Amino acid sequence: MSVLERLKVPIVLAPLAGGPSTPELAAAVCNGGGLGFVAGGYLTAAALEERIGALRELTRRPFGVNLFVPGPASAPETYSEYTRGLGEPRFHDDDWDAKLALMERAKPDVVSFTFGCPSREELARMGEAWVTVTSPGEAALALAAGADGLVVQGSEAGGHRGVFADAPGITQYGLLPLLQLIETSKPLIATGGIATGAAVAAVLSAGAAAAQVGTAFLRAPEAGTAAAHREALATTRETGLTRAFTGRLARGIRNRFMDEHPDAPVAYPEIHFATAPMRAEARQRGDAEAINLWAGEAHALAQEKPAAEILAELAAGAREALARAEKRL
Amino acid sequence: MSVLERLKVPIVLAPLAGGPSTPELAAAVCNGGGLGFVAGGYLTAAALEERIGALRELTRRPFGVNLFVPGPASAPETYSEYTRGLGEPRFHDDDWDAKLALMERAKPDVVSFTFGCPSREELARMGEAWVTVTSPGEAALALAAGADGLVVQGSEAGGHRGVFADAPGITQYGLLPLLQLIETSKPLIATGGIATGAAVAAVLSAGAAAAQVGTAFLRAPEAGTAAAHREALATTRETGLTRAFTGRLARGIRNRFMDEHPDAPVAYPEIHFATAPMRAEARQRGDAEAINLWAGEAHALAQEKPAAEILAELAAGAREALARAEKRL
Repeated sequence: MSVLERLKVPIVLAPLAGGPSTPELAAAVCNGGGLGFVAGGYLTAAALEERIGALRELTRRPFGVNLFVPGPASAPETYSEYTRGLGEPRFHDDDWDAKLALMERAKPDVVSFTFGCPSREELARMGEAWVTVTSPGEAALALAAGADGLVVQGSEAGGHRGVFADAPGITQYGLLPLLQLIETSKPLIATGGIATGAAVAAVLSAGAAAAQVGTAFLRAPEAGTAAAHREALATTRETGLTRAFTGRLARGIRNRFMDEHPDAPVAYPEIHFATAPMRAEARQRGDAEAINLWAGEAHALAQEKPAAEILAELAAGAREALARAEKRL
Repeated sequence: MSVLERLKVPIVLAPLAGGPSTPELAAAVCNGGGLGFVAGGYLTAAALEERIGALRELTRRPFGVNLFVPGPASAPETYSEYTRGLGEPRFHDDDWDAKLALMERAKPDVVSFTFGCPSREELARMGEAWVTVTSPGEAALALAAGADGLVVQGSEAGGHRGVFADAPGITQYGLLPLLQLIETSKPLIATGGIATGAAVAAVLSAGAAAAQVGTAFLRAPEAGTAAAHREALATTRETGLTRAFTGRLARGIRNRFMDEHPDAPVAYPEIHFATAPMRAEARQRGDAEAINLWAGEAHALAQEKPAAEILAELAAGAREALARAEKRL
């Protein structure tokens, strides 16, 4: 039985690694009947263990943990010119082995993976395991490896693309085409640009078992979103896909640094580490033009409200939207 | 009262200018209770008048006509290098004045516009008038000009982007974000990557009054789709956005000509005319690598079936999908 069947509302919090993720935000979604998530990315295994403990102090409801699957290191000649003058580029596997071992001990209700597909053996060590996919081909690989569910990420989504192997010119699929093209009896968790109850209803209609929502929670007081990021979210500024901040394709609100580096190379996490000091400093200064303003295409609809209210409105809006759609048919 | 309220099923045939559009295809959709469309683009006003007459011989149900809004001519220096060795580039306004006059005489149930927003005066000369939009900003302009409905085209859609002013680097919005971001009491007709009844249900749930479907009808026997195009549609080949064939951004199945010209300039219809002889010859030879294989992201789901069957399956599938979604909430 999937963890999704134990929820009161089929809404999953996106992991939101790198700042916005907090135990308080995850707990608010869990306690509202959705599925909260702890973002494991960028943390040490020890720090992740603390976060999980903190969430367990705040809720007894099911929750998930998201992990980044490490890829290969990049050759320095691919990024050294780009990172000149920035911080030190380095490779790190995000504490992969220790985090997998932690998952076996801590036993969250589900572990989701991003940036690749773990091996069949690694997936088998988890309880329920989901893999994030961005194309029908990735979905087939994840199912073959034994994934229990697929987080289906459309090109509308904010933050990093979950693509297994980033490369220039890779095909981006919108969420609705992906949901149609992926055929499986495993649950699909749809994500990308879902900011209203109507959009939750839309992805459920398209066959998803749940909607995963990230950007719509970024302005909640429980989120750890930086002030400059919150301000940008509340505008109608356009988003774009960029590798400028991290060396991996991600969607954010267009700003100066993004526009100055339209052809940043593929080199993750090397470029992530190289730009980290610049971003930390800009965040402190409140300079939105030099930080990664991760946001989905519908970010202008994100509301400054407690997470529990946002969740309740999404669920109520979804019910209303389905009732309206029935009348049209 | 919008023409949509006179339909038995809230499904609209995409215009499909440039070959696939036929009176037989439009009639099949009309007679099945949807809204058929006659594509006015690329035809003389006289030829369009004949097509409308042919459709009226085949159905008494409501139908629409789609027109291309002419843009400015491009400066030869922007495209002359690109079109060297191809056919003659030229500008043409697609017989705009004559077609507007024809619309006043022929009075289709709705006229939809693509590639721009007509003036308030031009829209007022029509009965019901829809404008195709690809962003919240375009939607605001179209509503201010008096559009009676908006065809909301997501980035998933096959064929030309309806964007008012094409330019390198323009932001593309997915269909679900667009439907959420556009606020109006006028009907939204959602289009882009809708190939199944579940996707029809999804856009209705997201607030659309109807789903506009194009690619899913391209393999119907009533469509005028070229043989090589039909074959490509039946594969899982990926799509991409390109200006290589026409000088205007459009989505098609990736092929050699597209991949050889990733940076084709913005110059429509000049490049359209310049590549026309090459494409006509390739179509005759059955060479799919040098023709514009327009297709939405979900093209692999297009079925080789009579249009009436495709329409009926979309409608039935949409009802089932809504019923399933209700159970999830």
